[in-house]
Parts: sequence; C-alpha cells; structure tokens
Amino acid sequence: MAAPATVPDRIREFLDRVAPPTPCLVVDLDIVRDRFLGVRAALPTARICYAVKANPAPEVIALLAELGSDFDVASTAEITLCLANGARPESLAYGNTIKKPADIAFAHRHGVTLFTTDSLGDVEHIARQAPGARVFCRVLVEPPGAATPFGRKFGCDEQMACDILLRATEIGLRAHGVSFHVGSQQTDQDAWRGGIEQAARIGRRLADAGVELPMINLGGGFPVRYRTDVPTIADCVAAIRHRLAEQFGDRPPSPLIEPGRAVVADAGVIRSEVVLVARKSAADEHRWVYLDIGRYSGLAETEAEMITYRLASAVPGPDGPVVLAGPTCDGDDVIYQRTPYRLPLALASGDHVDILSAGAYTASYSSVSFNGFAPLPTYVIRTIRD
Amino acid sequence: MAAPATVPDRIREFLDRVAPPTPCLVVDLDIVRDRFLGVRAALPTARICYAVKANPAPEVIALLAELGSDFDVASTAEITLCLANGARPESLAYGNTIKKPADIAFAHRHGVTLFTTDSLGDVEHIARQAPGARVFCRVLVEPPGAATPFGRKFGCDEQMACDILLRATEIGLRAHGVSFHVGSQQTDQDAWRGGIEQAARIGRRLADAGVELPMINLGGGFPVRYRTDVPTIADCVAAIRHRLAEQFGDRPPSPLIEPGRAVVADAGVIRSEVVLVARKSAADEHRWVYLDIGRYSGLAETEAEMITYRLASAVPGPDGPVVLAGPTCDGDDVIYQRTPYRLPLALASGDHVDILSAGAYTASYSSVSFNGFAPLPTYVIRTIRD
Repeated sequence: MAAPATVPDRIREFLDRVAPPTPCLVVDLDIVRDRFLGVRAALPTARICYAVKANPAPEVIALLAELGSDFDVASTAEITLCLANGARPESLAYGNTIKKPADIAFAHRHGVTLFTTDSLGDVEHIARQAPGARVFCRVLVEPPGAATPFGRKFGCDEQMACDILLRATEIGLRAHGVSFHVGSQQTDQDAWRGGIEQAARIGRRLADAGVELPMINLGGGFPVRYRTDVPTIADCVAAIRHRLAEQFGDRPPSPLIEPGRAVVADAGVIRSEVVLVARKSAADEHRWVYLDIGRYSGLAETEAEMITYRLASAVPGPDGPVVLAGPTCDGDDVIYQRTPYRLPLALASGDHVDILSAGAYTASYSSVSFNGFAPLPTYVIRTIRD
Repeated sequence: MAAPATVPDRIREFLDRVAPPTPCLVVDLDIVRDRFLGVRAALPTARICYAVKANPAPEVIALLAELGSDFDVASTAEITLCLANGARPESLAYGNTIKKPADIAFAHRHGVTLFTTDSLGDVEHIARQAPGARVFCRVLVEPPGAATPFGRKFGCDEQMACDILLRATEIGLRAHGVSFHVGSQQTDQDAWRGGIEQAARIGRRLADAGVELPMINLGGGFPVRYRTDVPTIADCVAAIRHRLAEQFGDRPPSPLIEPGRAVVADAGVIRSEVVLVARKSAADEHRWVYLDIGRYSGLAETEAEMITYRLASAVPGPDGPVVLAGPTCDGDDVIYQRTPYRLPLALASGDHVDILSAGAYTASYSSVSFNGFAPLPTYVIRTIRD
C-alpha cells in the first residue's frame, strides 16, 4: 500500500551539502513550476488562483506570478505578500468569506475587485467598502471523500445564495458566479458533481431574474499522493468537464480553480531528526520514535492522522512498527499512533527522518513558540538556468 | 451551569483606555501573583516548578522568579528565557522526557541539575551529557477526568521505572524520585492516587536495592474553573496528602508540583472582535458568529471543544444560540459547535467578545502565519505599587 519513499534529487543534494539545522522544510521551485504547469495543462480554460495559504513562501508566490498564476487570498496579509512579490492586483481573488469591513476596504484600496461571500451581512460590507466589485456566492456542499472536510463553516444554502446574488446586483455589485469547495485532499474524483448541479440550478434562477453568472468557482481539493494512490488532476478534471457539460450544455460558465496542495505539496520535504527511541515496557512491540518536529511545529495536518505523509530514512537494515510523536510535553503531540508505520530497527537518536510531499500546510501552521520550540524554517531552492 | 462572565477590573480598564487592536491577550500580573501565592499556601511543603509552557511571557517568568518560584522547562529556549528573566539555574527542572543529547548538554552547561526521564536511552544521554545530575523517572498513569489527557506518550511502566532509576545510579546519576502527570485540567481531585501508589511501590523496591528516593514529582493538572465548577487546589491537595500518608506513612518523599494553568489561566483575557454574524439558511436557528481569533491564532485548546472558555459581551439585550468559529479558511477552525453557547441577538460585526481565563496555553500556541493571520500578541499589566 505504501508508495515508495524517495527524496527528490535536488532536495537530497541540498540536504547533504548544506546540512541545515533540523527541523526544516526544503522547497524545490522547479517542482512547484512543474506542478503548476501540470494543473494548467489539465484545465487550460480555467483561471487558476493559487491558494496562498498552502505555502506562502515569498519565492513560491514570485515564481507563480511569473508563470501567470492568479491568487486566492485569505487575509490582508496575504494581499500584501502577493503584491510585494510580483502579483498584479487584478490577479487577486479574496476567497475568504469571513472578513472585516476594514479588510474589504484594504483589498479595495489595493485594487482587488473579486470577492467570495456567503452571507447577506458580508455582501453588504462588500458593497459599502468595495463598490462595483464582482462577487462569488459560496454554497454549502458536503461530499464525502475529503481528508479534511469543511463541515458547515462555509457556504449557505441554495435559496440564500440566490437571495445574496440578487441582493448583490441591487446594491451595485456584479454577481459573478457560484463558488463551492469539495474539501481539501478530496479523493472522490466526482466530488464536484453536487456543487456543479447547485450552481446550474442557481444559474437558471438568476437567469430568470435577468442576471447572467459568467464564472463558476470550483475551489480546490485536488488530491496529492501521500501513502495511497489518489485520482490524478486529469481524472478530476475529466469528471468536472463531464458534469459541466451535463448541467450547462454548450454554454458553461468559465471555470476558476483554487489549487494549493496540488501545486506545492510534492515540492517540499521536511527533514527531521530523531530525538529519542523508547519503549514504554520491556514487552512493547512498538517503539516510540520522537522526532524534533510534531503537530505544533509544522505537522498540523497529522491531527487525527488525516494526512499520512510518506517517510524516508537512510538507516539500513530491517524495519519494525513504530509510534511517531513530536517533541513537546503535550500528550496530543503524537503524529501517528493508529496508522501503521514502520522504521528501521537500527534507528537511533540523531538519525534523520525525511517527511515527503510536505510542501503544503506545514510551515505556516507552526506555532510561534509552543514549549519554546521555534517555527519551522523554509529553505527554497531552484535550479540555476542559463 | 455557566459561571458568571466578568472581565477582571484592571483588565477591563486597560482595554477601555488603550483599545488595543484585536485579537490580543491581556495578562494581569497581580492575578498571577495571587494564584501563585494560593498554590504555595495550599501546599507549603512543596517545591513549586511553574510550567513555563503555560505562558512564557517574560514578565510572568520575572514575577514568579521574584516570588521564589522554581520552573519546569520543556526546551533549551525555555531555559534561556528563564535565565534571562531572573531565574537561577538551580531553580530549573528539565521536565521534558524528549530531548536531544545536545539539549541536555546545553542544560548542563547552564547549571541545570534536575531532569525527568522515562527511557533507558534518555537516561544514558543524561549520564553522558550531565554527569551527576538528579533524575525523576516518569511513569505512565491514565486517570480519567482530564480535559486534555496525555494518552501513552509519556512515562514507562513500573518495572521499567525501577530499571531506569537503578541504571541511573549505576552510571553516576542520582535517582531523585518518581514523576507522573495526571493530565491537564484534571477534574477528579483523587486522580493523583494511582501515581502515588506506583511511586510508593517503586520506592519500596528501590529501597530494597539500597536507593532512597527523596522526592515525588506530582506534576501539574490542577484545574481551573472555565464554564463549570471544578475541585479547588485545596481539594486536590487534601486528596494528595491523604494518599501520600496512606502510601508512605510518616516518611513521605518531599513533593514537587508543576502547576501552569492554575497559576496563569485566570490572569488572562483575550479580547476578540466579531468579524461577521451569518446564517446559512433562512431557517437556521443558530447564528454563526465568526471571531477574529480561532484555533490557529490562540484558541488551540478548543480543539475537540476540550476547553470551554467563558465569554463576555457588553452588547445588551436578549441572547440566542450561536456556533462560534475562527477567521481562517480552514473548516476545522470552528471553536464551539456542539457545546451550547449563547450570545446577544444584537451582536454585530465590530462588537467585542472577551474570552475569560485565557492566560494559559493560548499565545504560545498561535500559528506563525496560517492564512496570513498574525500570532496573538500579549499585553502585560500590573498595578504600580508604592
């Protein structure tokens, strides 16, 4: 079941040569480029808004801006970050439905003209702070299959979406389309079906009221291969195209997608060091392997063991079962306890364990100083081109 | 069931006068002092090691050092912090059983002579890096009643504890005692019973081998009143004294305790601002109230709704049921969904919601920049004395 665990060549070369203090994240921009171009090739008609939250390293933003990516931002700090790294204001979409009036005003002042909303309160704020802006209305979808589902935090029901989009047009905004998100690391390639169906129904109701919706925001959720195979982005896109054609015929709205994980996950490797290997009793089959990184210093997505990273160790010899835990005094700072993991029997304090496909949702999640441990630093590498 | 929710006077006065940007944590050092003195009065014979991880604000450390507190540290950064704020090296106890040999060497170099361990590997590291040090061996206890139990991450079984403490004496260390931790926010006042019983059995076995254990490390876990009543520290101490007398007769080992939450929780208030109030559909009874703080910017202990803070709002009028959520685009950034909370029906964007008894395990947990949101800042206030 476990996929082979190999550190990408250039990252391995960097780790060998520089031997940075652990823990650290190393991001290879060439892999970011490759994955971004792969997404664009899979859905060339789509507007691609990279989800900045996945990895906000300035070098990643600058590269993607160079490549012509647009950006899905969640806060004013992400707007500033993008603008400081080469993104044009018109390439930014404020995707967070939760924003203060002052945040909307900030975005408007910096040239952002596209917002996602899901409530009457927020759409009134947008009309007041960013007059004339375009708005997506996010509907609630709850497809199974997501490793990190959204629950009911975002999105409203269909009737309310119609009310919000119509209200938007009344107060000087432009109703731009329906938005939904199938949940991060979505492993059902047809998970977009329900949202597309809702968007079509809402589109027909708005059209009856004389309002055309030019776009559909399909969100992110495109999965990455951690320990198990997942649908490719081509699989997901094929299913999406099929549902768009089925629901909208030959006049579908123009798609917008917000990939994050799919662009940056594979580009990153976390190097950690084994702090200690211990057994709780002489009879224990499992060793406890404590790393110098845990849930509070970068591996937040191992909460409830949702994301199961591939691990690589250069220690030779046979392996055995382990429980993996982080370095803090917190009992919840256990990485994998139920998910079966094996590591070399010879593994000892000071050995490295590399955590693969760790470029998304790691460094920015780190706690600022929990138990005195520093946030995860990022090293960005790229091939020098002629 | 809900306790009255009132912001302590000096904190309210500070918030009114300064109106700091939200979200922020305000810590009143006079309340820290009061709580520390309360703990000392409850168990005057104990060595009190404040658990720095609970709130590592330098002013808190400096005050407690002034008051004669000792310190339980979890990392080299916490050692540096304490030494920089007036703590003496001999007042530090390295309580984290997970530490690199280089961390132990750092501690030894800075004068730390007391360590907690729970594995043969770690005790060998201590003997090598901190020759002559004193060691507690932590045993695994699993009492129910903890809001944030430790699971099996820390501590070994009884037999292994005997082996580790005997091994310690063979390799030049001083076996100092048994350590255990009943889990943070422990609401069963007799939860210390099992650990004390284990410590007594281990003590007898060590005594048979000619090794006397001068101390017992009872850990922390003393609960704080959030929304529901909990045993007082006096209740817990009475139960502890009873068990010590029962198990050790008139020659009990000297107690050491590691309070964190009990010292700082009540001293802190988080001021947050309502970002948005929304309904998902016209039929929804619950409003969703989105605050500008959430699980990733300070309210980490609301994971699984384990800690249920008291909330205060100055908005007048009748209240109604709410779901509370944080400001990020993360579906797990929901604060309270199952726990019934009510807030004023008139609550709107821009109003404040104050989160009480929030001085422990908040600011240091904040993510460094998840979704672009900044870590929670701390303002420390104290009464100017003649």
